[in-house]
Amino acid sequence: MVRIQFAIDLHYELNYPGADFVFNIHAAKTASQSIVAENLQISQQVPSTIQTDPVTHARYLRLTAAPGPLHVTYQATVDIDHHIGNPDAINETPVAQLPLSALTYIYPSRYCQSDRLAMLAMSEFGNLPKGYRRVEAIQNWVRRQVTFRGATSSSTTSALDTLTDRVGVCRDFAHLMIAICRALSIPARFTTGIDYGADPALGPTDFHAYVEVYLDKRWYLFDPSGTAIPMGFVRLGTGRDAADVSFATIFGGVVSPPPLISVSALTEAGRPWETPRHRPEALSTDATVDKA
Amino acid sequence: MVRIQFAIDLHYELNYPGADFVFNIHAAKTASQSIVAENLQISQQVPSTIQTDPVTHARYLRLTAAPGPLHVTYQATVDIDHHIGNPDAINETPVAQLPLSALTYIYPSRYCQSDRLAMLAMSEFGNLPKGYRRVEAIQNWVRRQVTFRGATSSSTTSALDTLTDRVGVCRDFAHLMIAICRALSIPARFTTGIDYGADPALGPTDFHAYVEVYLDKRWYLFDPSGTAIPMGFVRLGTGRDAADVSFATIFGGVVSPPPLISVSALTEAGRPWETPRHRPEALSTDATVDKA
Amino acid sequence: MVRIQFAIDLHYELNYPGADFVFNIHAAKTASQSIVAENLQISQQVPSTIQTDPVTHARYLRLTAAPGPLHVTYQATVDIDHHIGNPDAINETPVAQLPLSALTYIYPSRYCQSDRLAMLAMSEFGNLPKGYRRVEAIQNWVRRQVTFRGATSSSTTSALDTLTDRVGVCRDFAHLMIAICRALSIPARFTTGIDYGADPALGPTDFHAYVEVYLDKRWYLFDPSGTAIPMGFVRLGTGRDAADVSFATIFGGVVSPPPLISVSALTEAGRPWETPRHRPEALSTDATVDKA
Amino acid sequence: MVRIQFAIDLHYELNYPGADFVFNIHAAKTASQSIVAENLQISQQVPSTIQTDPVTHARYLRLTAAPGPLHVTYQATVDIDHHIGNPDAINETPVAQLPLSALTYIYPSRYCQSDRLAMLAMSEFGNLPKGYRRVEAIQNWVRRQVTFRGATSSSTTSALDTLTDRVGVCRDFAHLMIAICRALSIPARFTTGIDYGADPALGPTDFHAYVEVYLDKRWYLFDPSGTAIPMGFVRLGTGRDAADVSFATIFGGVVSPPPLISVSALTEAGRPWETPRHRPEALSTDATVDKA
Repeated sequence: MVRIQFAIDLHYELNYPGADFVFNIHAAKTASQSIVAENLQISQQVPSTIQTDPVTHARYLRLTAAPGPLHVTYQATVDIDHHIGNPDAINETPVAQLPLSALTYIYPSRYCQSDRLAMLAMSEFGNLPKGYRRVEAIQNWVRRQVTFRGATSSSTTSALDTLTDRVGVCRDFAHLMIAICRALSIPARFTTGIDYGADPALGPTDFHAYVEVYLDKRWYLFDPSGTAIPMGFVRLGTGRDAADVSFATIFGGVVSPPPLISVSALTEAGRPWETPRHRPEALSTDATVDKA
Repeated sequence: MVRIQFAIDLHYELNYPGADFVFNIHAAKTASQSIVAENLQISQQVPSTIQTDPVTHARYLRLTAAPGPLHVTYQATVDIDHHIGNPDAINETPVAQLPLSALTYIYPSRYCQSDRLAMLAMSEFGNLPKGYRRVEAIQNWVRRQVTFRGATSSSTTSALDTLTDRVGVCRDFAHLMIAICRALSIPARFTTGIDYGADPALGPTDFHAYVEVYLDKRWYLFDPSGTAIPMGFVRLGTGRDAADVSFATIFGGVVSPPPLISVSALTEAGRPWETPRHRPEALSTDATVDKA
Repeated sequence: MVRIQFAIDLHYELNYPGADFVFNIHAAKTASQSIVAENLQISQQVPSTIQTDPVTHARYLRLTAAPGPLHVTYQATVDIDHHIGNPDAINETPVAQLPLSALTYIYPSRYCQSDRLAMLAMSEFGNLPKGYRRVEAIQNWVRRQVTFRGATSSSTTSALDTLTDRVGVCRDFAHLMIAICRALSIPARFTTGIDYGADPALGPTDFHAYVEVYLDKRWYLFDPSGTAIPMGFVRLGTGRDAADVSFATIFGGVVSPPPLISVSALTEAGRPWETPRHRPEALSTDATVDKA
Repeated sequence: MVRIQFAIDLHYELNYPGADFVFNIHAAKTASQSIVAENLQISQQVPSTIQTDPVTHARYLRLTAAPGPLHVTYQATVDIDHHIGNPDAINETPVAQLPLSALTYIYPSRYCQSDRLAMLAMSEFGNLPKGYRRVEAIQNWVRRQVTFRGATSSSTTSALDTLTDRVGVCRDFAHLMIAICRALSIPARFTTGIDYGADPALGPTDFHAYVEVYLDKRWYLFDPSGTAIPMGFVRLGTGRDAADVSFATIFGGVVSPPPLISVSALTEAGRPWETPRHRPEALSTDATVDKA
C-alpha cells in the first residue's frame, strides 16, 4: 500500500461574461483507491457540483465563474492498494471473453486511430506470445521510437502524428501505445494522474498521462513515456484518450499560468505505507468486470 | 406512433479457425421504442449471448462461430412513439446544464474531430440564434456541401476527409454534422438504423447512419444525408461515431456478401399506426437524463 | 512603372560546426523587373556563390558559414514594369494549349493537394464563366473563409489544414488558393516578395507570399490574404509552394531573431514612377512562354 | 549495355465532348539511353505534339481526342549503357556542393512529406556512415516495413500514409524511400519505367515506379519495392513524385481497361547486349550536372 499526498493549484483570469468549467482534478474513488482526506477551495462564491461517472468513477467538478480571477485548489491524501501480478503469468483475454465495458476500449478514438495500425501491429508484435510481456514489448517499442521533448505536440496531435514525427510528451506516448494495443484487439485506455517521481530536469511536477491495459480481468498500469513511477500514480480520470479526460475543460475566454502541483508519498513507522519505486511486477488498481 | 417491421439477413463464410462476432442488429429497447415481436436465428449451433449497454440500451449479440458458413437472421416488429416538438420552441441547453452523460458527446472522437472545426463552426453558424433551427442549418449546410455517392469513402474516412473531399455516404454526412455541432458545444451522437423510405435508385435497403442532437433535455433526430425518412428509423445502436456502432465487428477471417435487409411500416384500420413521412416538426425518441 | 527600394537584414548565431545556407533574398531579374542597384554584405569572410534558376529566374545565394555570428544584408532598388490587363477580357488558357512549363503548376504539391479538392472546386466555382473573374472569385472565397492571424500555422501546415482550420498567415491563404485553382486545371504558383503596404497593426514589414495564376499566356498577380499591395511586390522566388521558395534554407544548427526588413516606393518629379496602390485592373510581371 | 524492347497499348472510350491527354510513355532520350527505333500509333486522326522537358528529358505526347474510342500504341527499342559503380566507394554529396538542379529534390513534395520525417530518419539512419550503403539501408528498411499488396493504395496515398499503413504498391515504396532520403538532405526523385523481370504472380507486366538518388554527382537507381530488375528499367519520366510523372494525365471523361504492356531484353551473338540481372553493384544512367 502507498499513501500519496498531493495538491493542485489552478489560477484563471476570466474575460467577460465568465466561463463554465468542468474540472477533473479529484482523485477517483475506487475499490483500490480510497480518499483519506480531501479539501477543495474555490475563490469565487459560486455554486458548484461534483458528479461521478458511474462507469469510470472519475469525479467532475462543475461550476460557472464570473469575470475576474478564479483560484481553485484541491488537496488530497489517498491510499492506493495495488494488485501485484507476476508478469509471466498474466494472459491476454480472448476477445470472446471481453466484458462489454472493455470492448469499448478496442475501438479507435480521436487520438488513437487503431484502425490504421493493423499491419504495423501484426508485423511488429503479431508473433510474440500473447500476454503481459507482449504489451510490455509494445510499451518499450514506443519508448524507443519516440523521443520525449516538451512543447513538441499540441491538442490536435494524434497517435498517427506521433508515429510520423517520433517526438512528443507523455500523452503522445500514451496515445501511440494505446492505438497499437487496440490494433491487436487488446483493450487499452488513457488515464491521468500526477507524474510522481519524474526527473525535475523535465520540468516542475505536472499532470501525467499513462495507460491501463485489460489483461486477465484487470486493468494493468503502463507508463510508456517512462518518465514517472507508476506505483505513485493517483488515478484522476480514465477514458478512451485525452479527449475524455482533460483536467480542465473550459467554455469561455480565460488566461491562465501553468498549474502548480505537488505530490509526495507518506511513510511512518508501524504503517504499511511503502515508498513508490520502479517495480518489475505488474501493477493494477482496477478489476472492473461486467455483471453481465 | 409507427409500427415498423424489418428483417436483416447476414451470410458469412468463415476461414479456419473461425471468428468471434459482436453484432448490433437488435432493435434497442427504450422508453419510446418497444419490441412487439422479434426472432433471431443462427445457423450454427454455437453458444451466443445478448448484452445490453446500460447507458445507450443498445443490444449486442456475441458469438464465436466455426469455420464454414454462418447465417444470422433477425426479424422484429417495433413500435416507436415519437416525441413531436415545435422546432421554433426548442432551445440549446447551456453547457453548464448539460448532464454528465451528454457531455461525452461534445468531445471529439475518431471520425468527428471537432477540435479542428471551431473557426469554421463559429464563422458559419456562430451568429445564428441558438436552438433547433441552428442545428437544422448545420444539417442543411452539410447536405449542400457534400454530394452523396456510393463507394466513395472507406472505414478510415473521417469528418475532416469529408469536409475536404465533399463526397460520401450517409455515415460521412453524419460524421461531419456531428463534428460541427460539437465544435459549438452542442452534444451530438451517431445512431444506426435502417434507411426506411430511401430512394431505390440509391441501392437496395441498407443499414443507415443518422444523427441525434441534445436540445432541451432530449435527443432530436436529424438525417443529414437526407436519403431516408427519420420517422421510420428504428434505433439499433448509438455511440460517438461509427467506431462505436458497427452492425458487425468481426475478429477473424470471413468473406461475406452485402446484408439483405427489408423494412416496412404497418398500418391497420382502427390502429394508431401512422405511415412514416417527412415532417416539418422535430422528432425525438430519447429523453435521457442523468439522475445526478 | 514603380521603383521599389528595399533592405533585408538577417542575423544568425551558428552552433558548431557551422551551417550551409541557401538564401533566396535577391530580387529576380526578369523582363519586367530590372535591378537598378543592389548591394550584398556578408559578415563572415567565406566563399559564396549566386546561382540563378534558368526557368524561374530566382537567384540563390549559397554559402557555408563558421560557428559564431553571421550577418547578411541585402539592399536593392528595383524597377517593375507591370503589364496592366482588363480583368473582363482575360481568359483561361485551355489545358490543350498550356505550355509544358505551365503544366507543372496544375499538379498537386506538398502544401497544395489539389487532387483532393476537385469536388469542392467544381461545386463552388465550376459554374462560373472561365477567366480572370473566376480566379478572382476563388481569391475572394479564400479570403472570406480564412481568418488572418499570426502564429497559427507552422511549417507543416498545408492547404487541407487551412481549409479545415480556417485560420492562417499569408502563405496559408496562398496555398489554399493555389490548390483550388489547380483542382480546376488552372496553373497557379507560389511567389515570394515583401509585404509592401501592409497594415503595421499586423506586425513589422516582413516577407510575403502571394500567388501567380497563368491566364492568356501571362502570370497574373493575386494576393489572397489581402494584406498588402500587389503593385508594390518585388519578386524574389517562384515555385510550386512554400517548399520551393524559403528565403533561407539552413543545414545546421542556428539561432536567429526575426528578419529586419524595410521597403518603400520612390517617386520623383519628372519620373514615371507611380506609387503602388490597390488597382482594379489585372497585373502581371511575367509572360513566360515555352519555345516549344 | 542492355537492349530493351517494349510495347505499350492504351485503350480509351471517351465521353462527349472528348478529352485532352498528356502521355508520358516515350522512352527518354539521355546520354545513357538511346532510341534504336520507335513507333507511335494513334487511332484518331487528330493533331498531336511531342514536347521534351529540357531538364529531365522526359517526352510528353499531347493530343485532344474526340468522343468514342481512342487507341494509342507505342513501341520502342532502346539501348541503355549503365554506369556501374562500387557501392562501397560512392559517397553522399555534401549539401554545400549539391547543384541547384539537385537541390529541388531535397524539398518535400505532394507524396513525399520529408519535413515530417527528420526525427525518424535521424534515429534510424543518422548514425550510419554516409554514402551509397546508407541509402541502401533506407531502401531495405522500407522493404522490410512495408508489405507489397495490389489495390491497397490510391492516388491520394502519400509516404506518411504508407508509413502508417505499412502496405502498398511500387509507387508507395518509392514515395516512402524518397521522403526518408530527403529528410537526410539526400536528393531523391521518382522515376517511371516498366517492371522488367517482375514475378508474374504479382500480375501482368505493368508500369513501374522506382527511385533515383543523387550521390557523387550521379543519380543511382534503387528499386525499393524489390519487385523488378533495375538493370532492365527503361526511363520514361522523372519528377519529384507521382504527381509529376503520370503515364497519362487526362482532362475529360474516359473509361479504360488497364494498359497492355510487354517488355523483353534482346541478346544476339557478337553483340554486347547483356540480359538484365540483379547486380550487387550500383547502377546509374544519369550524370546530370549544373553548368553553374
